[in-house]
Amino acid sequence: MNALTERISTSFNAQGLMKTLGARLTQVADGVVEIEMPFSSALSQQHGYAHAGAITSIVDSACGYAALTRAPTDRHEIVTAEFKVNFMRPALGSRFVAVGTVVQAGRTIAVGTGEVRAYGDDGETYKVVALMQATFMYFDPGA
Amino acid sequence: MNALTERISTSFNAQGLMKTLGARLTQVADGVVEIEMPFSSALSQQHGYAHAGAITSIVDSACGYAALTRAPTDRHEIVTAEFKVNFMRPALGSRFVAVGTVVQAGRTIAVGTGEVRAYGDDGETYKVVALMQATFMYFDPGA
Amino acid sequence: MNALTERISTSFNAQGLMKTLGARLTQVADGVVEIEMPFSSALSQQHGYAHAGAITSIVDSACGYAALTRAPTDRHEIVTAEFKVNFMRPALGSRFVAVGTVVQAGRTIAVGTGEVRAYGDDGETYKVVALMQATFMYFDPGA
Amino acid sequence: MNALTERISTSFNAQGLMKTLGARLTQVADGVVEIEMPFSSALSQQHGYAHAGAITSIVDSACGYAALTRAPTDRHEIVTAEFKVNFMRPALGSRFVAVGTVVQAGRTIAVGTGEVRAYGDDGETYKVVALMQATFMYFDPGA
Repeated sequence: MNALTERISTSFNAQGLMKTLGARLTQVADGVVEIEMPFSSALSQQHGYAHAGAITSIVDSACGYAALTRAPTDRHEIVTAEFKVNFMRPALGSRFVAVGTVVQAGRTIAVGTGEVRAYGDDGETYKVVALMQATFMYFDPGA
Repeated sequence: MNALTERISTSFNAQGLMKTLGARLTQVADGVVEIEMPFSSALSQQHGYAHAGAITSIVDSACGYAALTRAPTDRHEIVTAEFKVNFMRPALGSRFVAVGTVVQAGRTIAVGTGEVRAYGDDGETYKVVALMQATFMYFDPGA
Repeated sequence: MNALTERISTSFNAQGLMKTLGARLTQVADGVVEIEMPFSSALSQQHGYAHAGAITSIVDSACGYAALTRAPTDRHEIVTAEFKVNFMRPALGSRFVAVGTVVQAGRTIAVGTGEVRAYGDDGETYKVVALMQATFMYFDPGA
Repeated sequence: MNALTERISTSFNAQGLMKTLGARLTQVADGVVEIEMPFSSALSQQHGYAHAGAITSIVDSACGYAALTRAPTDRHEIVTAEFKVNFMRPALGSRFVAVGTVVQAGRTIAVGTGEVRAYGDDGETYKVVALMQATFMYFDPGA
């Protein structure tokens, strides 16, 4: 595990919400991060699907960490400035995988896109249930 | 408690995620719904603030139920089509109150706006930490 | 006309697109800016209403200038980082008035909201046809 | 030219704004539409770049027509419900090409994404200056 993966992993483990949602960091690569979350009724909305807020939580973190892989060396922390998410189908599945990708990383701001895939019982085929476009801000934690 | 409030209350209680986040439905009025969530480390992001996903979850539900108060009588269920949220400050506070308002309710689509207020230790003053603009779709559950 | 109004007016007049669309700057106040655009078939989409892009253009400029009224003194230029617009009804009217308001102005980023009002033939009553939520970045043109 | 391309071309030519902006429909394929717009000072914002509103106008139309290529046969008209656009760099170039793609087409709603490419003087290399994520509504013009 290289230094960047380790830093992101440590940061992820410090997110109480990810633990609460049962989410795990499953991939960190240059510009792309994946987070997985098994379905549970503890995540549901009123019709029994995963709540838009739970789906958003994992894709926000995935996109943010993807942006962090391209952070300026002197600004290695990140916050979400804003995001927009389309929910394209009911979030039905046995597990959800959020894939976040950084599209552009400047000195102050990064733009990312992400999708959330809902896997069926076969564990292999999936449908994209949500699409994110987001803006992040880099900052220097010591400033 | 009138029929609409009862229906929304029943629906809210069926949301597993709201229970997981410790959120409570605190007000239902014509076109406006409020949801409250005490801060807890189980909701945090990596810097110890409330995670954007937790903040989004309550304001999504608040806006959705606000839209539901204006649903066509034959389409009394709702799903989130999409939303956009700006995070204006770190979500620091002892509790958060999401206020959702319906701006326009058509036959198929409703538009809502919402804000999340972070209350300080005095329990009275607050800062707005997040701003939502969202689109919902009405549907007939029997169709 | 004070210095701020003059600066915004000069900037507005440098926008070729505003001239092309027939838009005029009609109000500059602390945190709020209004831009007016008469309807013309040169602005239409395929059904004869004003195009979403024309409506967006004036409310983007209105929100941006509203944010500029609260710019840090050393960063007195602004660009749009992103925006989101809901189109709530067909943009039908004899003229359109975009009202932009700054919601929060930080050192680097500002958040604004705006609406576009479509006035009927009486010139007095209007309907809100579009709603914007936007993020702007301040910068120092000399840096 | 097949029937769909012809219908979209006729619709495009009915858009007064596209003519005003100097935009041309350059490609219609299943699920993907391209619109091109040469730079002109008539499209500028205050710093001389293309205005966010002009850039948005062409990518909104490109995404909308991309969605129209997948419309239900009985609902062959479309309006923009909402969009979100990130502006990633100054819109500097000799011409701009908006590429709109439909991501999901349901019976009522379609979701599309788009980008705007700014071409340099060599006419071959480009930079992506804007990214859109949008929602469209199909309707039956005779209903």
